[in-house]
Amino acid sequence: MKDTFTYSRLVQFSETDLAGIAHFANFFRWMEEAEHAYFRSVGLSVQTQHEGKEIGWPRVSTTCDFFAPARFEDQLQLKVRIAKMGEKSITWEVEFTKDDTRLALGRSTSVCCHWTDNGLQSIPIPPEIRLKLYPA
Amino acid sequence: MKDTFTYSRLVQFSETDLAGIAHFANFFRWMEEAEHAYFRSVGLSVQTQHEGKEIGWPRVSTTCDFFAPARFEDQLQLKVRIAKMGEKSITWEVEFTKDDTRLALGRSTSVCCHWTDNGLQSIPIPPEIRLKLYPA
Amino acid sequence: MKDTFTYSRLVQFSETDLAGIAHFANFFRWMEEAEHAYFRSVGLSVQTQHEGKEIGWPRVSTTCDFFAPARFEDQLQLKVRIAKMGEKSITWEVEFTKDDTRLALGRSTSVCCHWTDNGLQSIPIPPEIRLKLYPA
Amino acid sequence: MKDTFTYSRLVQFSETDLAGIAHFANFFRWMEEAEHAYFRSVGLSVQTQHEGKEIGWPRVSTTCDFFAPARFEDQLQLKVRIAKMGEKSITWEVEFTKDDTRLALGRSTSVCCHWTDNGLQSIPIPPEIRLKLYPA
Repeated sequence: MKDTFTYSRLVQFSETDLAGIAHFANFFRWMEEAEHAYFRSVGLSVQTQHEGKEIGWPRVSTTCDFFAPARFEDQLQLKVRIAKMGEKSITWEVEFTKDDTRLALGRSTSVCCHWTDNGLQSIPIPPEIRLKLYPA
Repeated sequence: MKDTFTYSRLVQFSETDLAGIAHFANFFRWMEEAEHAYFRSVGLSVQTQHEGKEIGWPRVSTTCDFFAPARFEDQLQLKVRIAKMGEKSITWEVEFTKDDTRLALGRSTSVCCHWTDNGLQSIPIPPEIRLKLYPA
Repeated sequence: MKDTFTYSRLVQFSETDLAGIAHFANFFRWMEEAEHAYFRSVGLSVQTQHEGKEIGWPRVSTTCDFFAPARFEDQLQLKVRIAKMGEKSITWEVEFTKDDTRLALGRSTSVCCHWTDNGLQSIPIPPEIRLKLYPA
Repeated sequence: MKDTFTYSRLVQFSETDLAGIAHFANFFRWMEEAEHAYFRSVGLSVQTQHEGKEIGWPRVSTTCDFFAPARFEDQLQLKVRIAKMGEKSITWEVEFTKDDTRLALGRSTSVCCHWTDNGLQSIPIPPEIRLKLYPA
């Protein structure tokens, strides 16, 4: 099984708010950045095609628990792992730390879909994508 | 008890992504906008003082389930209610609809705090704030 | 000629930064929101088709001068006018005020384009769009 | 004189819009990220104190010309230089390239200020900051 993957991210000025800390909505953007970096770390991109059709990964549920604030110029470590690999969906878990402090823990479930003329339609995760993301 | 409060919000171009739909992280920003509009609707601001000290409402947990995408220039309705009024915390629930379609359901728990020299310290929600937000 | 159009916008918490004021990059998002509201005010959308092809308005230059900060829950007025209507481009001017104070002045030039297989190609602004945006 | 400084930045999914390219307002956020990285590269932070008072650098003018779009997962290079070092202000220039293609050119002027009880007050750039940012 693939080890966890760590994505490092510096908190930027535009990501802070008037309370002097990183605005909470950024944790969700960062979680997604980390997932996409995970795709790249195994030679994939989240933006890809399968059998000539564009694949998308819409989220069906996202959650984040916050333990301590992140501040401007903090160097965050985002430890990404696949908490559950379903037939058609992936549940990601992302742990945010700074030095030895755990700042937040996020979870997000995305469904593998094809774009069709009628919108998104869920499909089984193609085996070659599954194997790279989550080697047995 | 206060009726639910509805906040209306148009999806902006900068809030879409290359999948052609609103980026999911915006639902968290919109949820917060709706909470702050709720504060204003009862004559308060989320940015306020109590006994000469600044009050803050850091989030400890936020979640959102997504049922259907929001698109550019969609007029969203965000129905806000207090799902749980604790001694020191509030759990907000925000339902996102467009016309008769339910797009998403968010929940967020914030803790009432004073800013001190040692950072944030949780306090009981001051009665006059509690009564306005959540009349018995 | 069309009178100027005013778009009203409340500064949101997520748009502030640790300096306690609205982050400057938001003025560019707000400028675009105001332009798109101008399109709607004349019965158009910035997202439209012409002769069966999608029209886009990529920006070639944008500038903003800042005179005074905007703060959380400030109600801004954005006065939008077309400073120059070219054959293929529009230069927008947006003045930001709060009460009687001028906060910023932005300018932005966008080129009317068709999306082709080779990317964007500039085209003359279609007469029916030109007339609605900028009646003689 | 200090050589130009280059800041590298990957375009993230949340930074794209429905036109399939990076939203223009992000170039202003990236420009600021690059300036702040420049401060760090000379051992400073944009968030600093001088003689016991907090220093801020509010922007008075920002502009960006766009030559070609940036896309998801593009690795951008931002070449930062100080175009003009004034007594109280700095004009930054940031050139955005991808491979050998120039995507954009930004300029931004910030004024060195102290935070006082009456708001911001411009001050001469402290010599030790000036020397690090712009060695003679």
